[in-house]
Amino acid sequence: MGLVTVTWTNYLKKRIPLRIRFLHTLKGNQIGQILMSPPLASLDLPDIWSPISSCRSIPAIHKSFNEQTTVVLDGKLISMEIRSKIAAKVRQMKKGLGKVPGLAVILVGQRRDSQTYVRNKIMACEEVGIKSLVTELPTDCAVTDVQNAIMRFNKDPSIHGILVQLPLPQHLDEEKVLDAVCLEKDVDGFHPLNMGNLAIRGREPLFTPCTPKGCIELLIRSGVEIMGKKAVVIGTSNIVGLPASLLLQRHHATVTVIHAFTQNPEQITSEADIVVSAAGVPNLVRGNWIKPGAAVIDVGTTPVEDPGCEDGYRLAGDVCYEEAVKVASIITPVPGGVGPMTVAMLLCNTLDSAKRMLNFS
Amino acid sequence: MGLVTVTWTNYLKKRIPLRIRFLHTLKGNQIGQILMSPPLASLDLPDIWSPISSCRSIPAIHKSFNEQTTVVLDGKLISMEIRSKIAAKVRQMKKGLGKVPGLAVILVGQRRDSQTYVRNKIMACEEVGIKSLVTELPTDCAVTDVQNAIMRFNKDPSIHGILVQLPLPQHLDEEKVLDAVCLEKDVDGFHPLNMGNLAIRGREPLFTPCTPKGCIELLIRSGVEIMGKKAVVIGTSNIVGLPASLLLQRHHATVTVIHAFTQNPEQITSEADIVVSAAGVPNLVRGNWIKPGAAVIDVGTTPVEDPGCEDGYRLAGDVCYEEAVKVASIITPVPGGVGPMTVAMLLCNTLDSAKRMLNFS
Repeated sequence: MGLVTVTWTNYLKKRIPLRIRFLHTLKGNQIGQILMSPPLASLDLPDIWSPISSCRSIPAIHKSFNEQTTVVLDGKLISMEIRSKIAAKVRQMKKGLGKVPGLAVILVGQRRDSQTYVRNKIMACEEVGIKSLVTELPTDCAVTDVQNAIMRFNKDPSIHGILVQLPLPQHLDEEKVLDAVCLEKDVDGFHPLNMGNLAIRGREPLFTPCTPKGCIELLIRSGVEIMGKKAVVIGTSNIVGLPASLLLQRHHATVTVIHAFTQNPEQITSEADIVVSAAGVPNLVRGNWIKPGAAVIDVGTTPVEDPGCEDGYRLAGDVCYEEAVKVASIITPVPGGVGPMTVAMLLCNTLDSAKRMLNFS
Repeated sequence: MGLVTVTWTNYLKKRIPLRIRFLHTLKGNQIGQILMSPPLASLDLPDIWSPISSCRSIPAIHKSFNEQTTVVLDGKLISMEIRSKIAAKVRQMKKGLGKVPGLAVILVGQRRDSQTYVRNKIMACEEVGIKSLVTELPTDCAVTDVQNAIMRFNKDPSIHGILVQLPLPQHLDEEKVLDAVCLEKDVDGFHPLNMGNLAIRGREPLFTPCTPKGCIELLIRSGVEIMGKKAVVIGTSNIVGLPASLLLQRHHATVTVIHAFTQNPEQITSEADIVVSAAGVPNLVRGNWIKPGAAVIDVGTTPVEDPGCEDGYRLAGDVCYEEAVKVASIITPVPGGVGPMTVAMLLCNTLDSAKRMLNFS
């Protein structure tokens, strides 16, 4: 008996609804691509999603190599634009309902970097009119202390988002802490049910983790086509690597996840059109890891000693910027790239949550 | 200021505990590899996990190409061995507690393939001494009818696993149905909380979906090293593709997921040491898609017309077997490869569940 051969193209025709197939042909069409991106509950703000031309005004490095222009994405500028739209929506909510979104942050211990991150988040909340509350707990507190703090916020109707600043001191069971956050207020998207719903096709998580959500927002706003492209995610953390790979897959990229056991990571990365690096290893990704014209999103923010800086240290990305900027078509700097987007996405998730809870559109 | 360069190797040394690093050096050592595999709640039966030499007795095709022997994995034989061990454990439980594991199956509609699958599962239960109950519902039933059937089994203390045979008729909301299965009895592992816990590093799902679990079991039993190897999963279904990619990542493979939007899938697949194909497209994976010496696990079971067969049709895999068998080092046939393993893993999950609920070790 002869072989039954069904080509991949026939398979596509059979399996992909006509609308999607049609959109698939709109290669390079930014509006087509944005419309086509799978709907994400946490990215459903039309005022944030609409394609903007703001990235045109971002400082760009023009270079001669390969006659290509590298766009350095200004995360600060883009996040400011998003934040101003969130602020407008918050004002609208206050006017209409007499209520504003509320974010509760729980900070355990005295880590300087965590304190800085929490301070930045609180300041960002204030700026857009989101109410914020911080509960600080001592390093040696018990897991029940953290859980109790969470429970109080779970019950508080003025709070729409609860965030536990990670990492926790080692003696605290992260799983027990994160599971205490009620699903409807899990604005970090770290609850396993939110992660499961992010992974499962046809389901929608209530929240998408802020950093990977910011990465995708940067890619889409820069006109990077994701569908069908090869994407490499470096790092498998629950906070960035895992949800970034799931999000890129939702946008129909062909995703490879690279980690410490990967053989020849440089070779695999050098074939990718999109690189999202979240390994936490300064200068891991060298220029020769990058395919010419690739989009490079650097999530790394590792503190490294630097006597020249005010605090004696600076934040270093995973990507060797000086080398990569000569090869990539789009790149994010550290600091000032993904970082500000993470905070903007947190505000966005908190606003989304308040809108859902208060039935405000 | 000079660049701070941390090599990947240094990163490994910093991040990977000594025990794992030591085991990482045991390349090709099967026992080392099995010990090293991340613990999975659903794969914790020592009598199933212990490396066995059964695959040595599997009929193998010896061929001259590249002086390499291709092992054709006999899923029936391997699953029989697993089932006999499950049967022994069930007898032990019956003797010790006077109770046996119980599986409830819900079948909606008249699909012939679904009826066959359910019949096979029930027969397998009987064979190992697991009690089974089947609820059949008409095609046009309401979602509440299915939910009510599930609720009854949720409350029934003699039932330790509940399985809803998929696919459901189109008018029924799969999400609403699957979410009704209580987490502790979700032996299919399709609940989003189980999937989230499978995805999140450091967490353990109560159950791992049966088919991908069977694929990994086949790989490990055949001595295929997974850690650090390039693996390609073809297909993104919630039942196979997604959990297979998550499982392979747990075993530290470098995983790429291929789907209908992937460009040059044959080129990407041809670089993989391990191929798990679950696209449902007969003969999609041709011989030239396979890297010489790769392990090929074919999950496809698409009914194709065949007047020569008793029922007028036969099940076809995704892999063009006649071509692939000449290139791969290990391959599963269709039928008789992954299929019987899926049923064995379902029994395994049901036994695990009963052991956990009845506190029996």
